[in-house]
Amino acid sequence: MARINDNFLKLKAGYLFPEIARRVNAFVAADPEGAKNLIRCGIGDVTEPLPSACREAMHVAIDELGDAATFRGYGPEQGYDFLREAIVHHQYAGLGIAADEVFISDGSKCDTGNILDIFGPGNVIAITDPVYPVYVDTNVMAGNTGDADERGAFGGLVYLPCTAENGFVPAIPDQKVDLIYLCYPNNPTGATATRGQLTAWVTYAREHGAIILYDAAYEAFIQDPEIPRSIFEIPGAHECAMEFRSFSKSGGFTGVRCASVVIPKTLMGQTASGAPQSVHALWSRRHSTKFNGASYPVQRGAAAVFSPEGKAQVAALIAGYMGNAALLREACAAAGLPVFGGLNAPYVWVGCPAGVSSWEMFDKMLDEAKVVITPGAGFGSAGEGFFRISAFNTRAKVEEVCRRIAAL
Amino acid sequence: MARINDNFLKLKAGYLFPEIARRVNAFVAADPEGAKNLIRCGIGDVTEPLPSACREAMHVAIDELGDAATFRGYGPEQGYDFLREAIVHHQYAGLGIAADEVFISDGSKCDTGNILDIFGPGNVIAITDPVYPVYVDTNVMAGNTGDADERGAFGGLVYLPCTAENGFVPAIPDQKVDLIYLCYPNNPTGATATRGQLTAWVTYAREHGAIILYDAAYEAFIQDPEIPRSIFEIPGAHECAMEFRSFSKSGGFTGVRCASVVIPKTLMGQTASGAPQSVHALWSRRHSTKFNGASYPVQRGAAAVFSPEGKAQVAALIAGYMGNAALLREACAAAGLPVFGGLNAPYVWVGCPAGVSSWEMFDKMLDEAKVVITPGAGFGSAGEGFFRISAFNTRAKVEEVCRRIAAL
Repeated sequence: MARINDNFLKLKAGYLFPEIARRVNAFVAADPEGAKNLIRCGIGDVTEPLPSACREAMHVAIDELGDAATFRGYGPEQGYDFLREAIVHHQYAGLGIAADEVFISDGSKCDTGNILDIFGPGNVIAITDPVYPVYVDTNVMAGNTGDADERGAFGGLVYLPCTAENGFVPAIPDQKVDLIYLCYPNNPTGATATRGQLTAWVTYAREHGAIILYDAAYEAFIQDPEIPRSIFEIPGAHECAMEFRSFSKSGGFTGVRCASVVIPKTLMGQTASGAPQSVHALWSRRHSTKFNGASYPVQRGAAAVFSPEGKAQVAALIAGYMGNAALLREACAAAGLPVFGGLNAPYVWVGCPAGVSSWEMFDKMLDEAKVVITPGAGFGSAGEGFFRISAFNTRAKVEEVCRRIAAL
Repeated sequence: MARINDNFLKLKAGYLFPEIARRVNAFVAADPEGAKNLIRCGIGDVTEPLPSACREAMHVAIDELGDAATFRGYGPEQGYDFLREAIVHHQYAGLGIAADEVFISDGSKCDTGNILDIFGPGNVIAITDPVYPVYVDTNVMAGNTGDADERGAFGGLVYLPCTAENGFVPAIPDQKVDLIYLCYPNNPTGATATRGQLTAWVTYAREHGAIILYDAAYEAFIQDPEIPRSIFEIPGAHECAMEFRSFSKSGGFTGVRCASVVIPKTLMGQTASGAPQSVHALWSRRHSTKFNGASYPVQRGAAAVFSPEGKAQVAALIAGYMGNAALLREACAAAGLPVFGGLNAPYVWVGCPAGVSSWEMFDKMLDEAKVVITPGAGFGSAGEGFFRISAFNTRAKVEEVCRRIAAL
């Protein structure tokens, strides 16, 4: 009899966003007329058109595929050189990263999930709380955890609380961990990490032979020149970290699908016999065997993000979303709520009114303001008492959200 | 210290195609002038332009993404309904498959590799020999095998020999297996399975609670109306099989990336406690958590394969490649070599001259005919004594290959 992976049965009933969708659908069914005014600030999905530089590059690439002389079939599994080199030149210049240390994929969700393929059992996994749920769920599926307790915390994971007190950057743990997920600018809190904080993490990782899985999917939203954009700005990171980036939120590629991972060749894990093993070589093998490269027209579109026109268009997109974030921050603060994030990230993290839980706040915002937010508890127990508002929306809708918050 | 997945270290040094690339590169370096006449019939990659119906649909989709009114961000992880419904209508009509039993992805290599995520340890895995190397290597990575022996066979796998005597369709095993990989039309042998043969496999699987992973990536090349195009033409298959298909070889999507998996809701695996568990639910959860949907313009391009224009263009592509296969069959037969496949598949499977090993034949074809083939032994020990010629090439190059084979 074919045996299934029982670890899947440990997963909580719903991934956060399907549960939100369920409640929204119920609201729509109960009040179809009121639902017409619904504004969705829940899931962090872009709303503005794909930059014309990217579209033009994709059109050209599609035409190339229509001509036998320029047709391309299977591409390199690790990505085309034109994109790997553009990423190094425009995102990692001066940081000691080579083009063949950049792997192209169809998304950061895939990369941050699939990366566990190359790590063995027995690693102690540290995640922040609150956290992007994919880090947790993929570890559950891979058998790296025990069961969940009644608050949804999984046995075996080391949760690093992120609170207003520590600026949503966790303290260095007092125990030994082997894999550490860090995401800055952070989803969901919108917090950023300083050079000093990242240096402390790199120092810890190098002392313990740990590996930092650094998710910089929101790097493009950093406004403050003092905030590191890459973990590789920190000396020593090339020996203890890999970095995930995405075109989803910068270029508006959530539906187009393209992302990258940088794995320095100097990054080593350990075999069962205690020998050092190149992580780069393992991921390269994984990519070659279980992936067949990102779509060629998509890679051309991604490379166009770095053209002069593309850069200007992306900057305009980012400025628009950051303007939204500023309005949302202002509206929540004016309503007397504690406000975090939204300065170098497209997410505003807001404290609920006293005595209101985050799912109660979700229901209240849905029923009374007809605004979909994301309840903080959905990202982990330390997210209780907060909610996330996404700045990914049109200016007109954000202004309406602000009016409704004021009216609540 | 971060522990790596030691199973990766069991993998053979090179995946087959990188080893071929290495030998070809060495040839080119040694004889740059002669290499100008090299003809590649090794890797099974399409050469003809992407059909205009697909290109036009992709252009329209990209323009949609440029307009706020028609912009789309994250799509459904399981694929857009327009494509799932088109697949059911055009590929599974009358076979009792619902649109929500079809999952869209970026490729069959990904799907056939990632599917192991949802199966547990302890399954006995059966693969044909010769076989598409991805099935083997992904099981090695997942820890479902022991070490390789000196012939490259991995402990713990049940190898099902496919020989000229059994028409390259394996006999039903006399032992109990839990997961069975079958690929028809077959890569690499070009063989097909009859209705009777598939019925025997379905009967076996149902008796033993086994699951058949049916890879029909080359279904579009079937010419003989008696040959089943889908495992779901066989009664009972909905309780014991899933089916992989791809747009790579039909629509020329190897660089564009789109594929599908059909998992009937009636397909059950077993939990540790012996309870039945829907495989569909597990894959849906895996897809939601570790994948973010195939690229929207790509899905539109794939759906256009089923338009009247798309169907005609794909038929022309297939006819061209099958014409190539007929020429290659003829040339090899005229050279006195035993010839198989190439009638309902784009691969011709040829016996080597007596006493010549398949890698010797590879080197001979490379050095003397300047033609790249794939050595049968690269697909498994039962492939020794054979080589694969791919019909994916232009007519002019195939005609030249035929002349060179005659001259050898």
